[in-house]
Amino acid sequence: MAEAANGNARSIFLAVYDDLKRELLHDPAFDFTKESREWVEQMLDYNVPKGKLNRGLSVVDSYKLLKEGKELSKDDVFLASALGWCIEWLQAYFLVLDDIMDNSHTRRGQPCWFRQPKVGLIAVNDGIILRSHISRILKKHFRAKPYYVDLIDLFNEVEFQTASGQMLDLITTIEGDKDLARYKLPVHRRIVEYKTAYYSFYLPVACALLISGEDLANFTAVKDILVQMGIYFQVQDDYLDCFGDPEVIGKIGTDIEDFKCSWLVVQVLERANENQKNVLTENYGKADPGCVAKVKALYRELDIEAVFLEYEKTSYEQLISAINAQPSRAVQEVLKSFLGKIYKRKK
Amino acid sequence: MAEAANGNARSIFLAVYDDLKRELLHDPAFDFTKESREWVEQMLDYNVPKGKLNRGLSVVDSYKLLKEGKELSKDDVFLASALGWCIEWLQAYFLVLDDIMDNSHTRRGQPCWFRQPKVGLIAVNDGIILRSHISRILKKHFRAKPYYVDLIDLFNEVEFQTASGQMLDLITTIEGDKDLARYKLPVHRRIVEYKTAYYSFYLPVACALLISGEDLANFTAVKDILVQMGIYFQVQDDYLDCFGDPEVIGKIGTDIEDFKCSWLVVQVLERANENQKNVLTENYGKADPGCVAKVKALYRELDIEAVFLEYEKTSYEQLISAINAQPSRAVQEVLKSFLGKIYKRKK
Repeated sequence: MAEAANGNARSIFLAVYDDLKRELLHDPAFDFTKESREWVEQMLDYNVPKGKLNRGLSVVDSYKLLKEGKELSKDDVFLASALGWCIEWLQAYFLVLDDIMDNSHTRRGQPCWFRQPKVGLIAVNDGIILRSHISRILKKHFRAKPYYVDLIDLFNEVEFQTASGQMLDLITTIEGDKDLARYKLPVHRRIVEYKTAYYSFYLPVACALLISGEDLANFTAVKDILVQMGIYFQVQDDYLDCFGDPEVIGKIGTDIEDFKCSWLVVQVLERANENQKNVLTENYGKADPGCVAKVKALYRELDIEAVFLEYEKTSYEQLISAINAQPSRAVQEVLKSFLGKIYKRKK
Repeated sequence: MAEAANGNARSIFLAVYDDLKRELLHDPAFDFTKESREWVEQMLDYNVPKGKLNRGLSVVDSYKLLKEGKELSKDDVFLASALGWCIEWLQAYFLVLDDIMDNSHTRRGQPCWFRQPKVGLIAVNDGIILRSHISRILKKHFRAKPYYVDLIDLFNEVEFQTASGQMLDLITTIEGDKDLARYKLPVHRRIVEYKTAYYSFYLPVACALLISGEDLANFTAVKDILVQMGIYFQVQDDYLDCFGDPEVIGKIGTDIEDFKCSWLVVQVLERANENQKNVLTENYGKADPGCVAKVKALYRELDIEAVFLEYEKTSYEQLISAINAQPSRAVQEVLKSFLGKIYKRKK
């Protein structure tokens, strides 16, 4: 039953994608040629609806929970879905550009967009177009709403935070001045808080709160919980990058090759003796598969998997107790639904 | 006197840049580290205030003309300058990313940002940061203004149009299916209208109108004139790319090498005989300096410079007569000031 209901929610959500795409491809602010319309359509289909859609669907789910069982009109569902899609567009924008910066090969089980033969660095401009689509969707469907300005400010602030987190990540990882001594837990925490938590966790709930007529200023504790959850999510991501199944997660992890400030390497550095640190210094951040294997062997030697499982357990318990301290039952439901979706995830 | 007044206006404008930069480097929405604050500061200083500042300064100039000699308060000047800087930020965002896509070497007399040794493709994320700074500036200084929403919608729409024009340009120029038969005047016109005219010409005047309390819906004729002016400006750009002095324009043109749908090649194609078309087909879009020289020789053979000078004269006359048909004297002044700045420009 729940599966069927979820399948139905997903197909309703996907139908809204088709509506939004059609509108964007006929936006009167631009005089499309046949070729440019086809380009944008292919670019959208390739990059926007290909993920798990968790962020987007969670706007609709959260909105339903906040309405506490009251029947939603078709319009209500459409609006919540449109906001969900704005987050998916934001995600596509970041991923298309991140893959270029990280020189990645695959994403969501297919070659990265910029690796398509005709695309190349045109993908940079496609990123800009994805970004501007968010504004076009918001204007078309929310311009007359009392919360329009708050919605725009929210997306803009979260974009700023995500780009700032990405910058931290990039400048911490700059080729040439490879220095593992900088990789400490507070550095990792700051990167993932800004780069992932705001847009993946806070943004969907904030969208649902806004269309429910709430003032976000009254939900700073909820924001804090969601940011914590986002950090936990990114730690899982770091873990799966190394220990996950590429077939299941849809990409081949390259954090070790890329000298990333991953949670795993931070944990290793906290526990390693001088010998082990030397192994890391000599092998971390190199493309050579032999070096990668030595790093992974070190992770096993120090049983970083067990450290992760312990972290996962503690994070879960702390989050549950923070959620239970929330005064609103509906808000508790929203937060628990999020946590339930990511706890012990394999992809 | 006029020179001194301009020098003063410029230094007041530049002082506002320092204010805005300081605010952005202490934005409470992000927890800056020393390194990330330094990175953003260098990135801004390198990319934002290095151009001619025509677009930015013209917001202030236009606003003064629209106020018809009424004394402006310090606050008024600050706000007009801040909007001017938002356009300079938008320009920096486009240029940083365009230079990556076009694989350019120099910009404004210095190496492109992405060619700085430590930067590379981190420049893509710097582009995102530049974009999000516009929203941060608008929110900080205009959130309480009655025209805040219009301002945001304006910047968003213009960004969408510019990215769409850039897309047209890029997909028209795709490597591999080089086909000069597509390069016709309407194709060129559509590219430059969207890629250049809206953000360079309409946007500054629209900003000045909004802070003057005007409703943009009443200025569609003004918009049309500015778009025409923008097209003329881009034709000059195409001309200068080939015939301008690299020392004066601050970059080395590569339109021929890049197989660009330049106004020059469109004019050549309209006038060339079969032999000349073959020369073009064999040499246009190749990096080899010998090929570039053959294309330039063809431009001289067909006296494309004279065609350009005639186009420049006709455009100027048409624009002046459209401007004189405008009912408001102040608006006429604004438009003539723009035209005066670009007519017969050498850079």
